Parts: sequence; C-alpha cells; structure tokens
Amino acid sequence: MEQQEREHPVQCRANRPHQFSYENGILVTKIEPGRAEGVLNVSENSLNPHGMVHGGALAALADTVGGSCACARGRSCVTAGSSMEFLRPAEGPVITCVATPKKEGHTLSVIQVELSNAQGKLVATGTFTFFMMDQW
Amino acid sequence: MEQQEREHPVQCRANRPHQFSYENGILVTKIEPGRAEGVLNVSENSLNPHGMVHGGALAALADTVGGSCACARGRSCVTAGSSMEFLRPAEGPVITCVATPKKEGHTLSVIQVELSNAQGKLVATGTFTFFMMDQW
Amino acid sequence: MEQQEREHPVQCRANRPHQFSYENGILVTKIEPGRAEGVLNVSENSLNPHGMVHGGALAALADTVGGSCACARGRSCVTAGSSMEFLRPAEGPVITCVATPKKEGHTLSVIQVELSNAQGKLVATGTFTFFMMDQW
Amino acid sequence: MEQQEREHPVQCRANRPHQFSYENGILVTKIEPGRAEGVLNVSENSLNPHGMVHGGALAALADTVGGSCACARGRSCVTAGSSMEFLRPAEGPVITCVATPKKEGHTLSVIQVELSNAQGKLVATGTFTFFMMDQW
Repeated sequence: MEQQEREHPVQCRANRPHQFSYENGILVTKIEPGRAEGVLNVSENSLNPHGMVHGGALAALADTVGGSCACARGRSCVTAGSSMEFLRPAEGPVITCVATPKKEGHTLSVIQVELSNAQGKLVATGTFTFFMMDQW
Repeated sequence: MEQQEREHPVQCRANRPHQFSYENGILVTKIEPGRAEGVLNVSENSLNPHGMVHGGALAALADTVGGSCACARGRSCVTAGSSMEFLRPAEGPVITCVATPKKEGHTLSVIQVELSNAQGKLVATGTFTFFMMDQW
Repeated sequence: MEQQEREHPVQCRANRPHQFSYENGILVTKIEPGRAEGVLNVSENSLNPHGMVHGGALAALADTVGGSCACARGRSCVTAGSSMEFLRPAEGPVITCVATPKKEGHTLSVIQVELSNAQGKLVATGTFTFFMMDQW
Repeated sequence: MEQQEREHPVQCRANRPHQFSYENGILVTKIEPGRAEGVLNVSENSLNPHGMVHGGALAALADTVGGSCACARGRSCVTAGSSMEFLRPAEGPVITCVATPKKEGHTLSVIQVELSNAQGKLVATGTFTFFMMDQW
C-alpha cells in the first residue's frame, strides 16, 4: 500500500530543475497553509570570497521558501520587497529555512523567514512582502 | 605598449570561479572609490517558476556589487543587512547593477544599488549595510 | 491680482493641526508630480534621551513627505512598509526631507526619501512602499 | 514594607518628559534582559489624515521599545536602521509593543518588534538594528 505523501503543487514547481533555486541546491521540503520549509545544500558554489555562504544564496533560499509559504493556499505571487538581517557567518553542510506569515492579505502577504545552520543556530532572518495574484 | 587596465583586487576576488556569484553568471565589471558596477548574464538557470529572473539572483547581484563598492577603498566587509524593492519583472539577456555609497563609515557603510534591464529600465533597487573590517 | 500659489490638496490635508505630523513640527512645503518636500522644525519635544532628533521623528517626517509624493497625482495611499537608514546623529534647528518616486504603480508606489540637516548633510535615508487607492 | 519594583535606568530615561516619545504618549512599561514592552496612548494628536494612527507614531513606539530592549543589559545604543511592515490600520485607545532580540552582538544588536491594538490584533511589525556603545 502506498504511503507516499503527495507533493504540494507549489513544491513541484519550486523544485523543478533548470531554474535558479534548484540549480543552487535549494529545495522546498514542506508546504502547508501557514508554513513552508526548505533547505540549501551548501557546496563550493554557494560561497562568497570569505568562504562563507553567500548572502545571495541565503536571500534565494529565503525568497523561495517565503514565496512558497505565501502561495500555500493555492494562489500565486511575486516578490514586492524584502528586508534581511545577516546575524552571523553561515556555513554548510546545510542551511534550513522556516517561513511563517505575519499577514496573509488579498493583495499583499507579509512572510517572515528564519534561516539556521546544522546546529540549529539562527544565521539570518528576513521579512518578505509578496504581491498576491489569483492566476498563475 | 600595455594598454590593459589593472583589475581592482576586490574585483579579482569577486570574479573568481567556484563561488556563488561567478557560477551564477555575475561579474563585477568596475570598481572605483565611490562606485561599483556589475552584470548578471541571465541564463535558464537564473529564472524563477514564472520564467522571470529569480529575486535571489537579483539579490546576489546587488550584494556582490554593493559589497565591492563598500570595499573599493581597500578594506574588507561582510553584509549586515539589506532591503530590496522589486519594481517590475526582470528579464535577460543581462541585468546591470550600479552601486554608490550613502555613507562610508568606520564600522558601517550603507550602499544603494540600482538594477536595470538591457533597455535601461529600473527593475529593482536596494540598500545594503556592510560591516567594515580592516583585515581580509 | 492674486499671485498666491494654490496649495496642493494633499498638502492642505497633511498640514492640518491636531494630527501627528503637524503637532510634531512637520510641514509639507511642496508637492508636485514626481516630488515632495517637507521640514521638521526641531524642538525640545523632538529629541531622544541622547539629545538628538528621535528616530521616530525622522520616520514621521519621511512617512509624511513620502506619502505626499505618492499621492501627488491625485490618488490616495496608505503606508505598506518602510526601511530607513540612520546615517549620522541628527540635530536641529530643522531637518528637511525630499521624496522622489522609484516606481509609481497602480497598486504599489515605491518612494525614496533623503533627510538632511541645516548644513545640507544627509542624516537619514529611506524607502517607503505605499498601497495606492483611488478614493480618499 | 515597600513592595514597589525599581524602574530600570533605561526606562527612567525613556519615560522622561520633554522628549519625543513621552510627549507623544509613548511609555516604556517593562525592561528586562531579552524583552521590553511599551504602549502608545493614542490621542487626536497621534493620527494621520485618514484618522488612523500615523505610521510615524508607530515607528516612534517601535524605535523606543526596541532600543530599550537593546539596552536592557546596561549598555547604550543608537538606531542604525529599521524596516517596518504596516499590516492593518491602527486605532486607539492604545497600541502595545513587545520587543525581543534576534541577535545581541558586541557592535550590532537586531531587535524585532510587534505592535498590537487593544484587541490583541497585530497592526505592525518591524526589525531594528542598533549600534551598541559601552558608554552613555
């Protein structure tokens, strides 16, 4: 008997090859109304000149998982704005991201993200505002 | 006789292969005190599920060129925080970025970035705060 | 014959007594499509415990003048989000603010603000996102 | 025998008359390491032209309570940057604010704030970065 959970359609779309997030080691691992989760699998190609995870890789993880959270109830969205705080140097092997809504609105949704290293230590936080659309 | 301009050391470091920015098609094209410029060469792997340039790719371009501007006078830096506004959908073949300082401080520098498409239309703006360090 | 310039309706509304901005010494001095200007007349009641202009007073000036810029073409708006950078300690007797659009959209407008002291030195900058409405 | 709790020195300083926060109805009500709380007592002079609480009043409350949280362990600070999201229209009679740290660092502390109306509904959120100093 099948035990496999069906993937959320947004998760399928987010995890498809040949796009920025997938090709950079980013996977959305869970989407449900009010929450999304994802990981960045850190490789040599995730790093900045200091040898730490590049802020852009963290921003890409945050945007991808935040957008998945905003779209968890079946609508579509594009990112309107973001703020991020880089709290400490980020290292691999993985960075995890959890996204939860501050507000889910008709036109705008505001999603907060928390990014942690493998030891569970917070490395970055952010707040993303998404412009919501009914059609994909 | 040599006509070739010598690259800024920060530019050499930023444009090295096997790191996040280079592997995603980002190059710093100019660094001088008070200004840095760069490009994102858009490929299939730069895109989001909508087929537009991923916000994370724009953030990576902004962070890379902004940091190059902050370090243009010979010091080193790490990103402390950022805010970005995504003004319109971004498409290839290239996105250019210009970074200029709002403040160059001893401990913190604040750099603004403007990202434009090939038609010169502004697609995103941002403000990055860098924590400055004397040593690399 | 009258030479007096008529005040922009948004300016009239912004400069009315018995509201937060007016009662804190904030006046909108000019509104035209694509630009708004204003001043904060600094008093003892504008200060923080350090004796400098309170960040909240600067934010109020920025929000008031930014919103006036967003509404300069006759529509109404409310503030959706803001980011501000406090570049140096701000002192009186006046702080001036200039607001210009980064984008004027149907639903969202993004306005940048620059706040300067009496010597013309930049003390703070910000980016405000306004949710636009057709009706007051 | 006296049971009265002694006020935190930062609270004394924040709640002194003749400064921006006090004169606008803002009081810090509690400071302890890792948390600060405060209120805005809304009056006619707290409002914007729409008759709602002015974004600048909310920003002033957030900055005051956030800074109190950053200074709760006995150091001093100034605001370096902020981002705020205005989630829904804010009305009186009071707006409460709770501030908690995302990071307490040697040079920078990052504090998040949540602002709620009398019904406990979230009206605004924000993230403030403070530059920490050892001396007042």
